[in-house]
Amino acid sequence: MSYNAPVRDIAFMLNNVVGLSNVAKLEGFEEATEEMSVAILEESARFTSEVLAPLNASGDAEGATWSEEGVKTAAGWVEAYAQFVENGWGALSFPVAYGGQGLPMCLSSAVQEMWHSSNMSFGLCPLLTQGAVDALAHHASDELKDTYLPKMVEGTWTGTMNLTEPQAGTDLAAIRSKAEPEGDHYLITGQKIYITYGDHDMSENIVHLVLAKLPDAPEGVKGISLFVVPKFLVNDDGSLGDRNDVRCVSIEHKLGIHASPTCVMSYGDNGGAIGYLVGKPHHGLMYMFTMMNQARHAVGVQGYGIAERSYQQALAYANDRKQGPTLLGGNDSEGIINHPDVRRMLMTMRSSIEAMRGLALECAAAFDVAAKHPDESVREASQRRGELLTPLVKGWSTELGVELCSLGVQIHGGMGFIEETGAAQHLRDARIAPIYEGTTAIQANDLIGRKTARDGGKGLGELMADMKQVLNELKASDDVNVKAVAARFEPAIAAAESANEWLLGQNDPTQPSATSVEFLMMHGRLAGGWIMARTALAAIKAKQEPDADEAYLDAKTLLARYYAERMLPLVESGKTIVVDSADSTVGLDIAQL
Amino acid sequence: MSYNAPVRDIAFMLNNVVGLSNVAKLEGFEEATEEMSVAILEESARFTSEVLAPLNASGDAEGATWSEEGVKTAAGWVEAYAQFVENGWGALSFPVAYGGQGLPMCLSSAVQEMWHSSNMSFGLCPLLTQGAVDALAHHASDELKDTYLPKMVEGTWTGTMNLTEPQAGTDLAAIRSKAEPEGDHYLITGQKIYITYGDHDMSENIVHLVLAKLPDAPEGVKGISLFVVPKFLVNDDGSLGDRNDVRCVSIEHKLGIHASPTCVMSYGDNGGAIGYLVGKPHHGLMYMFTMMNQARHAVGVQGYGIAERSYQQALAYANDRKQGPTLLGGNDSEGIINHPDVRRMLMTMRSSIEAMRGLALECAAAFDVAAKHPDESVREASQRRGELLTPLVKGWSTELGVELCSLGVQIHGGMGFIEETGAAQHLRDARIAPIYEGTTAIQANDLIGRKTARDGGKGLGELMADMKQVLNELKASDDVNVKAVAARFEPAIAAAESANEWLLGQNDPTQPSATSVEFLMMHGRLAGGWIMARTALAAIKAKQEPDADEAYLDAKTLLARYYAERMLPLVESGKTIVVDSADSTVGLDIAQL
Repeated sequence: MSYNAPVRDIAFMLNNVVGLSNVAKLEGFEEATEEMSVAILEESARFTSEVLAPLNASGDAEGATWSEEGVKTAAGWVEAYAQFVENGWGALSFPVAYGGQGLPMCLSSAVQEMWHSSNMSFGLCPLLTQGAVDALAHHASDELKDTYLPKMVEGTWTGTMNLTEPQAGTDLAAIRSKAEPEGDHYLITGQKIYITYGDHDMSENIVHLVLAKLPDAPEGVKGISLFVVPKFLVNDDGSLGDRNDVRCVSIEHKLGIHASPTCVMSYGDNGGAIGYLVGKPHHGLMYMFTMMNQARHAVGVQGYGIAERSYQQALAYANDRKQGPTLLGGNDSEGIINHPDVRRMLMTMRSSIEAMRGLALECAAAFDVAAKHPDESVREASQRRGELLTPLVKGWSTELGVELCSLGVQIHGGMGFIEETGAAQHLRDARIAPIYEGTTAIQANDLIGRKTARDGGKGLGELMADMKQVLNELKASDDVNVKAVAARFEPAIAAAESANEWLLGQNDPTQPSATSVEFLMMHGRLAGGWIMARTALAAIKAKQEPDADEAYLDAKTLLARYYAERMLPLVESGKTIVVDSADSTVGLDIAQL
Repeated sequence: MSYNAPVRDIAFMLNNVVGLSNVAKLEGFEEATEEMSVAILEESARFTSEVLAPLNASGDAEGATWSEEGVKTAAGWVEAYAQFVENGWGALSFPVAYGGQGLPMCLSSAVQEMWHSSNMSFGLCPLLTQGAVDALAHHASDELKDTYLPKMVEGTWTGTMNLTEPQAGTDLAAIRSKAEPEGDHYLITGQKIYITYGDHDMSENIVHLVLAKLPDAPEGVKGISLFVVPKFLVNDDGSLGDRNDVRCVSIEHKLGIHASPTCVMSYGDNGGAIGYLVGKPHHGLMYMFTMMNQARHAVGVQGYGIAERSYQQALAYANDRKQGPTLLGGNDSEGIINHPDVRRMLMTMRSSIEAMRGLALECAAAFDVAAKHPDESVREASQRRGELLTPLVKGWSTELGVELCSLGVQIHGGMGFIEETGAAQHLRDARIAPIYEGTTAIQANDLIGRKTARDGGKGLGELMADMKQVLNELKASDDVNVKAVAARFEPAIAAAESANEWLLGQNDPTQPSATSVEFLMMHGRLAGGWIMARTALAAIKAKQEPDADEAYLDAKTLLARYYAERMLPLVESGKTIVVDSADSTVGLDIAQL
């Protein structure tokens, strides 16, 4: 199936709704003008549709393959990755000092949507490299940075994150991997699982970031340190040296993302893998969180990126497939797109994708402001906003992404269940996103705990206030669709405030934890409504410009209305579920289940 | 993964909630006592857990295989099917006159849940045979019945339904298969797709029921006739004769149900397959509906049957897997079942499965009364009830089944995405159920059109009245959980009545069609709430008996409360969605999508 990057929709969201121009005012982001953003998005559209998209189905069918010699990616992947590196796609958001282009995160996130739409399995490799670069750039010594970052930014070396062990998934305190000091380095031993692109044949070297414990480590999460363990050791002149004592012992047979090797990694089978401490001893978990926050946002982008691909395929099928007389078409000469229920499914997909995209770009723009704004209080507030939105972007967008890819299957009828059609692959691929980089429950805990209870609801209160300001703008409009949005946005905000108040009034964490995922989902839906409300307002504003494309802009307003009428009622019921079902959720004894 | 049939839960629903004893009062169903039902369920539990369940994962991995000689099922399937036949499992609900046991549909449905829980791919073979038997028993000549039914009831011959052609899926009017009269039979030519168990090696013969057009057929659906086309012709003495001119030309590569061969069937490549007309010419579609209504109910049973398997696997994992300190367990010595969000997922699965099971058994019992009650008005009202509930059983239970199997994956965390775990198979298998035997949109159209608009809402009104009576019983209770159920059941009923009124007031079918699936889902959820409310009342009643198992019965009441608090708020928001979003759903031009 082909992929046509929705450049216009992405650019509209970035420029007209989120406001890239505000980010471009910041020192260091001056190049990120509207014109530049469109040029980059168009270039990325070409690359992803022409190079990455054609390898998506074949990569799924062939998968990555393991042997003693290492992991081989599917046919064409080595060449595609070489082109990715040559074009500099991996370097967009990285520091200029190490060869990156220093673009704002909101623009690079907009580009990365296309990686995951065109080929989610492929997109995972630079996603992980990016996390590793962030962690090193923030926490490693200059020597380590100088040795590793230029090649990683360039993309000729890729990066991995090695956290999970069989007994230590969500609970990283249970990590058993060890690091013994030896001269200027450490000897790492242990086994890591679920290592994405832990081995492959697309890059010259692979830079593993590994959590392990030093001999004197305190108990629990406070005893975890972070190490760099390269696949090939690096000589003083920067050339590649000996093969390090780390290897991939097997890869997983998975539901989806077949072409992305998920590796079991063994460190130190022959005495110990040489590793280098990143930052201070016992600070590894904190450093890893630097990677994880970026990675969580990126996985949220995957959530709607894959849904966009599913939508495009379903839309094409709905236009082509003829089946019976249709209520909207009148005769049997038009596609099933004229059956009202097929419209419902397409509208649900399309409007939800726009809402998720806008929220992710809004979150990224907040981090951009937090990084560069001259005023410290603005930086702080923006950081708080970005951190608050991150669990929504990750949790809500990935859960909704699975639902939408399932709708994409449904639109195809029986054909959707046949693998050759390709619709099923998107569902299989999408299903990992609510699991990795912290399950939805972890995102929900982050939202109710770190991001809300810890600051007494300050960040959430600021968000609600911003929403109410948008509500006032909606109410001032006499557009019928905008009025309809307001009619659903207002009670949704009230419901959310009521749930927030309930949450902040709880002393025992059990009740809020029991319905925390509902709390996350209701806030995700509401934040999506906030984005769509702003989209409607932006579309109406844009219509006043000369030569405005009215059909395009009217569609934006109607999509916002559909979203409000379809999704925002679930915020109201969500409040009831959050508050009412907390007791009964945990009311049974284990033996009664 | 092992499977333990929930005999106690099924028997409680059948006997204490749905009321098998009322069905057993009817002439012909006297044997279906409570004791008999439990004995049959226990025997079925042994067979399905010992024989069918162990073949589920291996069947998925191996799949069915095609060759010129025919389709081979996976290792062990031939032997398992032979045992199925030997034990008489296929014959439970069939007419005594043809060797069946004549048990009520509510009891046979209860048994069939276990087929689909233990091995959905296997269960499809008798599911299709049952549909074919029903169609023949109702519509075929005595000669055809005598020739085919005894062997099909016995199970030594299996049956198929041949409706779909590449250009004719939902729109059967587009069928092109032809039947030319020749002597006492017809020569059938054409291609059929998506034929479940169209060929396989488990039975001596395969009896295809095929829709085709006679030379003088009128246009459209009124020109379709139904034919019996056996794989092997049957001699006058009942022995098998020549191979008929029908063959499976390929099988599909599917997302799930790998072990169930989905066949492309070619009829008449060598001059024409010999077929026999069932009933009158041009009445085929009507006859096929006899099969389809049964099959739709059976697919609804699959929807929660597969979710039950997923639940059992997730529950076992949640008990075994240890990961960090838990809020409910206090330390790290207990499983993740003590994380509140894992409880939420398990409670959602468990309570929803009970609700769906109860609704399917209630629907089947209505058909049983409709078939045997001495009073014609009771028969009519029961038939109306059964027909009203069928699209809910099919549409709601299959959609919810997919959601629950996805939760089953989520509970496993990263392990859920690894195919060897088995959780992903349930999701892959479940995904077909909202598609085949009429997509969810078709069920929704049936609900709002044939089942509601056509009788001016009579059937739905009767159902609402029954629900209100249960609400009054709830309100009369002083049990805290029952009160909580009532608190959510009352506004849900009111919301549904409001949506019903809106539906019946529409003149243009476009608006109701645009939100018909939401309408179906809200009524499914509400009907589930009605079942769970009755379950709570039944549990409280049962607690008054001597030696009552209080922990078991208290769990039933709490599950009802959880269901009401988690699911019934969605009926209220569902009403808003149904009414408000109908316009915006169909508001864009095709080019704007």
